[in-house]
Amino acid sequence: MTPFGFQLLATDTATAARRGRIQTRRGVVETPMFMPVGTQGTVKGVLPEALVEAGAQIILGNTYHLYLRPGHERIRRLGGLHRFMHWERPILTDSGGFQVFSLGQLRKISEEGVAFQSHIDGSRHLLTPELSIEIQQALGSDIIMAFDECIPYPSERSYVDRSTALSGRWAARCRQAHDRSDGSALFGIVQGGMYEDLRRRSADELRQVGFDGYALGGLSVGEGAELMYEMMEFGLPLLPVDQPRYVMGVGTPENLVEGVARGADLFDCVMPTRNARNGVLFTSFGKLSIKQARYRDDDRPLDPECDCYVCRNYSRAYLRHLFQANEILASVLNTQHNLRYYLKLMADIRTAIETGCFATFRADFHRRRQPEDGAVA
Amino acid sequence: MTPFGFQLLATDTATAARRGRIQTRRGVVETPMFMPVGTQGTVKGVLPEALVEAGAQIILGNTYHLYLRPGHERIRRLGGLHRFMHWERPILTDSGGFQVFSLGQLRKISEEGVAFQSHIDGSRHLLTPELSIEIQQALGSDIIMAFDECIPYPSERSYVDRSTALSGRWAARCRQAHDRSDGSALFGIVQGGMYEDLRRRSADELRQVGFDGYALGGLSVGEGAELMYEMMEFGLPLLPVDQPRYVMGVGTPENLVEGVARGADLFDCVMPTRNARNGVLFTSFGKLSIKQARYRDDDRPLDPECDCYVCRNYSRAYLRHLFQANEILASVLNTQHNLRYYLKLMADIRTAIETGCFATFRADFHRRRQPEDGAVA
Repeated sequence: MTPFGFQLLATDTATAARRGRIQTRRGVVETPMFMPVGTQGTVKGVLPEALVEAGAQIILGNTYHLYLRPGHERIRRLGGLHRFMHWERPILTDSGGFQVFSLGQLRKISEEGVAFQSHIDGSRHLLTPELSIEIQQALGSDIIMAFDECIPYPSERSYVDRSTALSGRWAARCRQAHDRSDGSALFGIVQGGMYEDLRRRSADELRQVGFDGYALGGLSVGEGAELMYEMMEFGLPLLPVDQPRYVMGVGTPENLVEGVARGADLFDCVMPTRNARNGVLFTSFGKLSIKQARYRDDDRPLDPECDCYVCRNYSRAYLRHLFQANEILASVLNTQHNLRYYLKLMADIRTAIETGCFATFRADFHRRRQPEDGAVA
Repeated sequence: MTPFGFQLLATDTATAARRGRIQTRRGVVETPMFMPVGTQGTVKGVLPEALVEAGAQIILGNTYHLYLRPGHERIRRLGGLHRFMHWERPILTDSGGFQVFSLGQLRKISEEGVAFQSHIDGSRHLLTPELSIEIQQALGSDIIMAFDECIPYPSERSYVDRSTALSGRWAARCRQAHDRSDGSALFGIVQGGMYEDLRRRSADELRQVGFDGYALGGLSVGEGAELMYEMMEFGLPLLPVDQPRYVMGVGTPENLVEGVARGADLFDCVMPTRNARNGVLFTSFGKLSIKQARYRDDDRPLDPECDCYVCRNYSRAYLRHLFQANEILASVLNTQHNLRYYLKLMADIRTAIETGCFATFRADFHRRRQPEDGAVA
């Protein structure tokens, strides 16, 4: 079994952008990389083969959802999440913390963990750091995330202080509970809200414990792009330079480019997949909403610069028709395009860093983007 | 352009089963063949490439739906239905008659045609034989169906008599309106309800007008399998032996085998696709309902004898999970399997006729099928 590792292949001179390679027991992940979200054992509407075609090298699975349905013990019996969903490449799983807070009902936080009721059937559960690790290992996750509280924004400093300290103690318990013998990696998550000193304290505590990689949590929670960029700029340099850095739940194409410029290696977000199902599509010239009447007779591909299956074979008029008719294929095709857009963007970013052109790439990227639907009339 | 034609390749000695080949301007269709239904410019949940992989050689498009949305003139401007939906093989279109009666509101039948209101927006329309042909030719259909009334069951003889006579006059008007110069074919539809003499009169009238192929309409409308088989047995021999025979809206796998035994060449039905979306799956041992709790931990493929993408890569447990979680991929995978089941069945039927084994095949087929979910515990 290949041990987990990270190799820094190139660094940008003008920015903090890095080109790296994560080695996992199920193959490599070239960074910077975006991870499509596969909440319930499927990236909604996309076959695994189409994910590979779009350029996905790693996907994210949700501990909370899979624990509640179909259950992690069931997935373990069925050979693990990879076999269950027919995906052979690496999987990163979140800890369940975020969904316990966003979806669980009647939550009660204690030193031990979080008591909550299922959003599906109201059943009662207690998610602890140890159980989160047990679930993620039962799923067969390749990169396991420590259990933490994702702090809402805005929050009082005193709350952030206490929550961050608790997440730190939970992280140490996760490190203890994690069985490394299966070759899986464990990442710690820096919290601290929008308070720099608390972020620094959190990062120091986690480095003290020692993890295989580090994430910035608690971003993209409503704080706005500028504050998020500030927190990345401050927070990413606090993390070890020779280990992967993951910015959780981020974001728009612009956020990805700016995150990379500040030294981030990994991202995940439901935006390309969820927006696709709502008919909002990403292109090289910005977003467009395919339901608009202006696309009724538009025989052009969604994005003439895109190389994806959808742009090669279908017109905007057809995609608009499918969306208006509420057809399954609307979600299928829109998601495939949006994921290709995101993953091609990451591939272009990697090439730009390798060739020393990232600063130019970044400026071009922003200049070409126009107000929504500005360029498509 | 290859002219439309039909070649009889083999006939069974024990039954009326026929092995044939339809030549269209967009390629051949080996018969007996089942046509997946692509109502709104898409076979729900299935990419064209997956249709080909499942063995589809021709699909059915719905005139009523495409006329109302996105509109046949729009599809014509966009290069026709084939280009619009990225399907290069033959398309047969229905006449719109069936949906006008099943979906249209405030219908009023006259000699001229049928006035109705759209089920989408209540707008008023008059569908005539001439307009039906115009729509189908605008779509670029390869096999065009004559406009008729699909008579409900049960119906009074006097009603069936008048309706069948009207459909006969409409069929003659369709023949007049059809421009053969584009290489498309026109099929007539035998009506007559469950009255043999009216069926005979309808078939005689249509043969008098002369069509490129003939269909039995007004079956599978609630009359029950036995009566349907009787009507096929009586009706199919009324049609020219050297032209294709299409039994519309049929049916279950059993219906297909029995239809072939009585001399039918073409079938269409929403059953494999609609049932798939409801979690009802076809297998070599009968139907199963994937939502049942018995499949929760079932690691076996849906149908161990099936060669489809789904059966090669996914377990019943996973398919059950997707269905329970209301995931898009449930519809996608279930539909792909059901279509492969139907199309593989037709391929096996064709081989059986070619090799003179159809009677044995038919007996085996029925013997192996068991009560729903009987063999899957």
